Amino acid sequence: MRAIGHFLPHLRGVKQGPEHPATLLDTLLSHQSDSARLKSAHAVRDHFTTADDEGKRAFLQLLASGYNTDGKLLDAAISHYRKQRDPLSLSMLHAASEPRRQTILRRLNELPGGTASIIDMRREALRLKQDIPDFAALDHCFVHLLASWFNPGFLELRQLDFQSSADLASKLIQYEAVHAIDSWQSLRSRLEPADRRCYAFFHPRLGDEPLIFLELALTLDIPDSIEDILRSDREVIDACDATTAVFYSISNCQQGLRGIPFGGLLIKRVVDLLRAECRSLKTFVTLSPIPGLARWLGETGGGAFQPMTDGQDNALIASASRQTLLSRAAQYLAATTPDHGDPVARFHLGNGASIERLNWMADLSVQGLRQSYGLMVNYRYDLDHIDYDHRAFAEGALPRMSSEVRLLAGLSRQQSGKRQQNG
Amino acid sequence: MRAIGHFLPHLRGVKQGPEHPATLLDTLLSHQSDSARLKSAHAVRDHFTTADDEGKRAFLQLLASGYNTDGKLLDAAISHYRKQRDPLSLSMLHAASEPRRQTILRRLNELPGGTASIIDMRREALRLKQDIPDFAALDHCFVHLLASWFNPGFLELRQLDFQSSADLASKLIQYEAVHAIDSWQSLRSRLEPADRRCYAFFHPRLGDEPLIFLELALTLDIPDSIEDILRSDREVIDACDATTAVFYSISNCQQGLRGIPFGGLLIKRVVDLLRAECRSLKTFVTLSPIPGLARWLGETGGGAFQPMTDGQDNALIASASRQTLLSRAAQYLAATTPDHGDPVARFHLGNGASIERLNWMADLSVQGLRQSYGLMVNYRYDLDHIDYDHRAFAEGALPRMSSEVRLLAGLSRQQSGKRQQNG
Amino acid sequence: MRAIGHFLPHLRGVKQGPEHPATLLDTLLSHQSDSARLKSAHAVRDHFTTADDEGKRAFLQLLASGYNTDGKLLDAAISHYRKQRDPLSLSMLHAASEPRRQTILRRLNELPGGTASIIDMRREALRLKQDIPDFAALDHCFVHLLASWFNPGFLELRQLDFQSSADLASKLIQYEAVHAIDSWQSLRSRLEPADRRCYAFFHPRLGDEPLIFLELALTLDIPDSIEDILRSDREVIDACDATTAVFYSISNCQQGLRGIPFGGLLIKRVVDLLRAECRSLKTFVTLSPIPGLARWLGETGGGAFQPMTDGQDNALIASASRQTLLSRAAQYLAATTPDHGDPVARFHLGNGASIERLNWMADLSVQGLRQSYGLMVNYRYDLDHIDYDHRAFAEGALPRMSSEVRLLAGLSRQQSGKRQQNG
Amino acid sequence: MRAIGHFLPHLRGVKQGPEHPATLLDTLLSHQSDSARLKSAHAVRDHFTTADDEGKRAFLQLLASGYNTDGKLLDAAISHYRKQRDPLSLSMLHAASEPRRQTILRRLNELPGGTASIIDMRREALRLKQDIPDFAALDHCFVHLLASWFNPGFLELRQLDFQSSADLASKLIQYEAVHAIDSWQSLRSRLEPADRRCYAFFHPRLGDEPLIFLELALTLDIPDSIEDILRSDREVIDACDATTAVFYSISNCQQGLRGIPFGGLLIKRVVDLLRAECRSLKTFVTLSPIPGLARWLGETGGGAFQPMTDGQDNALIASASRQTLLSRAAQYLAATTPDHGDPVARFHLGNGASIERLNWMADLSVQGLRQSYGLMVNYRYDLDHIDYDHRAFAEGALPRMSSEVRLLAGLSRQQSGKRQQNG
Repeated sequence: MRAIGHFLPHLRGVKQGPEHPATLLDTLLSHQSDSARLKSAHAVRDHFTTADDEGKRAFLQLLASGYNTDGKLLDAAISHYRKQRDPLSLSMLHAASEPRRQTILRRLNELPGGTASIIDMRREALRLKQDIPDFAALDHCFVHLLASWFNPGFLELRQLDFQSSADLASKLIQYEAVHAIDSWQSLRSRLEPADRRCYAFFHPRLGDEPLIFLELALTLDIPDSIEDILRSDREVIDACDATTAVFYSISNCQQGLRGIPFGGLLIKRVVDLLRAECRSLKTFVTLSPIPGLARWLGETGGGAFQPMTDGQDNALIASASRQTLLSRAAQYLAATTPDHGDPVARFHLGNGASIERLNWMADLSVQGLRQSYGLMVNYRYDLDHIDYDHRAFAEGALPRMSSEVRLLAGLSRQQSGKRQQNG
Repeated sequence: MRAIGHFLPHLRGVKQGPEHPATLLDTLLSHQSDSARLKSAHAVRDHFTTADDEGKRAFLQLLASGYNTDGKLLDAAISHYRKQRDPLSLSMLHAASEPRRQTILRRLNELPGGTASIIDMRREALRLKQDIPDFAALDHCFVHLLASWFNPGFLELRQLDFQSSADLASKLIQYEAVHAIDSWQSLRSRLEPADRRCYAFFHPRLGDEPLIFLELALTLDIPDSIEDILRSDREVIDACDATTAVFYSISNCQQGLRGIPFGGLLIKRVVDLLRAECRSLKTFVTLSPIPGLARWLGETGGGAFQPMTDGQDNALIASASRQTLLSRAAQYLAATTPDHGDPVARFHLGNGASIERLNWMADLSVQGLRQSYGLMVNYRYDLDHIDYDHRAFAEGALPRMSSEVRLLAGLSRQQSGKRQQNG
Repeated sequence: MRAIGHFLPHLRGVKQGPEHPATLLDTLLSHQSDSARLKSAHAVRDHFTTADDEGKRAFLQLLASGYNTDGKLLDAAISHYRKQRDPLSLSMLHAASEPRRQTILRRLNELPGGTASIIDMRREALRLKQDIPDFAALDHCFVHLLASWFNPGFLELRQLDFQSSADLASKLIQYEAVHAIDSWQSLRSRLEPADRRCYAFFHPRLGDEPLIFLELALTLDIPDSIEDILRSDREVIDACDATTAVFYSISNCQQGLRGIPFGGLLIKRVVDLLRAECRSLKTFVTLSPIPGLARWLGETGGGAFQPMTDGQDNALIASASRQTLLSRAAQYLAATTPDHGDPVARFHLGNGASIERLNWMADLSVQGLRQSYGLMVNYRYDLDHIDYDHRAFAEGALPRMSSEVRLLAGLSRQQSGKRQQNG
Repeated sequence: MRAIGHFLPHLRGVKQGPEHPATLLDTLLSHQSDSARLKSAHAVRDHFTTADDEGKRAFLQLLASGYNTDGKLLDAAISHYRKQRDPLSLSMLHAASEPRRQTILRRLNELPGGTASIIDMRREALRLKQDIPDFAALDHCFVHLLASWFNPGFLELRQLDFQSSADLASKLIQYEAVHAIDSWQSLRSRLEPADRRCYAFFHPRLGDEPLIFLELALTLDIPDSIEDILRSDREVIDACDATTAVFYSISNCQQGLRGIPFGGLLIKRVVDLLRAECRSLKTFVTLSPIPGLARWLGETGGGAFQPMTDGQDNALIASASRQTLLSRAAQYLAATTPDHGDPVARFHLGNGASIERLNWMADLSVQGLRQSYGLMVNYRYDLDHIDYDHRAFAEGALPRMSSEVRLLAGLSRQQSGKRQQNG
């Protein structure tokens, strides 16, 4: 049993003296006027921001291990609750069990730019977590508060286009995690044509800093290579003629918000918005990488398929057994569960999407060849199935897939819907 | 001992059948995709919005008494905490003790307009609270969540002027609680001149719906009557010449946010803003009503001072013992504590202001005569004392007052700062 | 023959000395740097703005009679043109004949707020024109320049609604020339409901100052009284259900722009906009006053119809020969020509509208009774006929009218389209 | 003598038939309703836009030679004016002499995007002018109208920064005529730091299309090389500490507005704005190229100074007679007149600036070496002298220069201010 509350273990690296973080945090928690409290919060933030890594770590561990609750009050609340077991005594127990570090974070959040500071603080905590013994308790507070402040009601969906600010465009370039934007022309070709869109979530307290963005193409059929989407000499179509919306890139921008889920919601809001705008749209799919494929093949005896490097000839890929590779990839994706498997597959299947099609020679970039031998996959967002599939997948069912993919994976119709024993 | 959790007492007025609120709320709490959850939240909101008073009451009592927590899990968390007493077990106890009605409110908040719906729901709960046995436990959840969503970091300070929308102007008229705006000219005279200002707090989820607003005048000295502020034939001065900012009206707009404090923060932000803008400003005071004076005088043997009615001649007031009345008013205000006394005094003294001056024949409106025999008071926001006074008043000290007011109240210098025995 | 150019007749009321307007104007015309020219323009404007009526008149007469052109240069340009008669010599003649007062006005226009100043100057000139002998030459310059600066390309169409500024709303109240807005409720009922609209033209150099605005109602049929439009207890309909758009008020806001035509264009742009927005709209009509009717009846022997005053009983109107009055009104409107007749009729018929219906007891306001015995008229904007009718009316044809109105006016089908001899 | 009016010379390349431009233009000039006139204007614009070069040329020549005026009416106006010689007859002569092509252009301007179309039309006319015999008469109309529509009152000064749109940023890159922006980093370094600014003029009818922009640096002294301004590793200073504003790039964006002057006004508005914002700014200079220097040296016997090419060693320049080159450059600039000499010098001296300093090795780019052997010049905008110098230079005085430059140019103090005989 470890002591909590104000008893603090020896704190390696925390400075002594008037700027001791414990002093700063105690002051922040004390009863003060609004303005005095704000000054305290400034002092805490400045301390953290200017600290070196060891100072940051020490501060975070202090926050994680100290600043829990008043043990006596909590014991009393527990006793009262056990006696009463009514709504009010429960509420009082809940209040009494709130760690005081939560109040600290709330008061930091009151600062101008406070929410950004807390996101930064969590990003640093995630980076240093190996050296913060009570990281789990600390992160519990971060996640609890961030999930509340970033609840879906606060998220603002905005379209980014060529009229968006140069600053925002430069962030798009910086955060694009899937297919790099390597020129001004490349930027324009994703933002300006009538059949290309980019949407992002913003938050009122983060101003023009995007949380996550989504790039999509409006097309006449489901594309089978990323080159079809990105090349600049293609013919632009009228958005109202498009039948298919293809999500080809989705990128998180804030490391400090890791685990706060926005992606599924962003896709669904964009689907709603597009359906209201373009009546012709019937099909909503992704064109997604399979980042874990090559490694999985390596681990599961796919030795024949060495990850490709840029020096190798594309012909080599062609000469590999195309059918074998597609089949193994289908098995890999079919084995996805909420907790295991390809991360992109987990994300989309977890959102209720299905596996629509595997595409051969679809991403011939260095990274595409290395990760997945150039294979890409289309996940399909079918609005009639999405709610059911979301729940079925969460509760252990096999992912839904098209008959083509099921065939590739060697699954009979009967097997679909049931998790394989060895899945 | 009363049972909690899913055991529900007999619920008077709650409809049976597929639309039974318990069914709706259970569905809302179940594991669902984003879009299915949104549909459930819509159904709950629609149920509440369209219910009559009895339906609303029954729904709110259901929410208050049911939807607590899983008793077994909580008991396990308590045991674990008692054994471990470390940060993580405390976090888990805190999580396990969270009433499930909090999750319900969070999911309602995800709706478009969700925050406004929750504010409306609380307004109704406050209105019906006499008939909701578990109102306290319910309101605990409301206040906990609303305080988090309306924390100071989210509040947007905006100036309202004659360029603000007609819609907003009409809300100003509607919510003005202190000195009614009775004509277009009266509106213009508060919004347009260079020496009149109006500020309000807004919230990103409530759009153009103000939370609270503050009207102020920039003047050359501390005014001693509201007529000086409001008459339209006065001379407008240049804001940069003003030495004094007079807060003459502060009005809350959202009944459903009662008890979530904005007022003190609004005054302080406006003071900061004005000081940055006009270097000449040295004095920040209010010109405030004393709404509880006449009643207090009646209760404490001030029978000589019958509340005035509009039929009575002002001469009557003049003939009353002016000195006696001022003295009694000073005593009334000096006796204010954080929990007792005039509500306006409690607000300003609680913010760290002091009692500067009592003004005779300062508000000759019907309401002014009835409530306080025409008396008004200036509270002073002195930035050098505000933090200290805030804390001193909270901890039981007498309010700070000018020597003039102290004299009127019959207090010696030595007595100030100490609470009177009979206060 | 009167001398022009720099020879100035005796100028009554023009101040002598350094501030003599001639000195100011000569300086403004001299060769100067941009900044020096701006200073001169400021001086001229200040002179005019601060002058009393006699000073203004003298300034305007100076501008009207002096500041013509260099006679010698113009004579040379005339000779050159007469010899060459080619495009270039014509251009040079045109340039040489430009009065120098035009340059003066252009340079005043360069000032911040310059366009508003010139509009004000013309408003004053129109007011004082009886005392400005050369007003016609002056006004020619005003109109030439204002028509160029206010050409349709510069006009910005904006919808005014309850989100428009309080300032703009107060201007709407001030300028409304047809049916007064007498309360906050009346304002809201014209701006907020889904089936009421208000549009205005703005100009980039006049900021939020409207040039002209148009109020309209979306309805299910052609209304026969203004009360139907304005009463507040009516049922609001969905804009998408409306079949008819009724223009019930159109008001010019800038006296200094008199004669610069905006109204027809405003109606047509709004018609285009509404048709694009609401597919159900088929009928575009006005509900218009007939301001000249009573006077015309008085002049043409309609002695039986004394103009009504508010003291008189409405029963009196009913007892008048309804049929006779309607018939005479139809004759009055049918006799409208581009240059004679009812001003509202000239405006709408000149825009290509037709006379659709006369309405009995349609405007029972004091003004409505006095001007037109309570009669109102619907003009119809029929997009299939508007271009043809516009030209036909301009070239002397009878106004187009419905068979009902033609019958009332006692015209046979054959007569329509041809101007009556005695029309 | 050439015939004007409707008599048209044989028009090479103008199509016959219903789309003959003469038919289109005649229709546009005929009496029509607003909407019919708009349709005609659309037809004319479409004809021009879709025409090939020969079609465009034929259209422009038709516009230039035809569409003059009604000869009889003009002759009558001339006679009347000669008899009356009063303001009104002059006004009538001016109106009668207006070429009808001016009405055509005004009606084209009424189109959505009409002003941009006319700018495009003039750009094409300037490009093809060698083949348009009556270009001068046509351009007279263009310039007359464009100068009216682009008068200073209409110009909107806006600051461009990193919050400006990506679209605008891409235009900045496209139009930058002086020092190319070759990377995203280069763009950011001109727009984002506190001591770098970019301002542009916009026009309400051209939306976000800039007319001209100006890049400037806030510094602590007058820079002597462009590298000092543009390098990215420099230390950013606080704008409030700067003493010097350096205009280092000014670029026109619209070829079709050639000759409509904006540049001087832009500099002066920016100077006013900066002085109001930063009290510390005392010195306003340019850092300008001398694009005509190398050619002038070649023409005037500066054979020793072969234009540099990028292959050559910078050491060569250093070994050239530095003093001789600076001296010759000073002579070159000192000889500038409003009509002759270096174009950049004519622009700044014409604005009232003086020649402050010549800088050796100041622009070592390929273009800088070729044009001016790496020399650059600072022109100084001294607000106490600007108005006087503007006029003096226009009236034939020598440019004002610092004693250092005068010495380099071999001029005595007495000579300055007087134009040299051989200047």
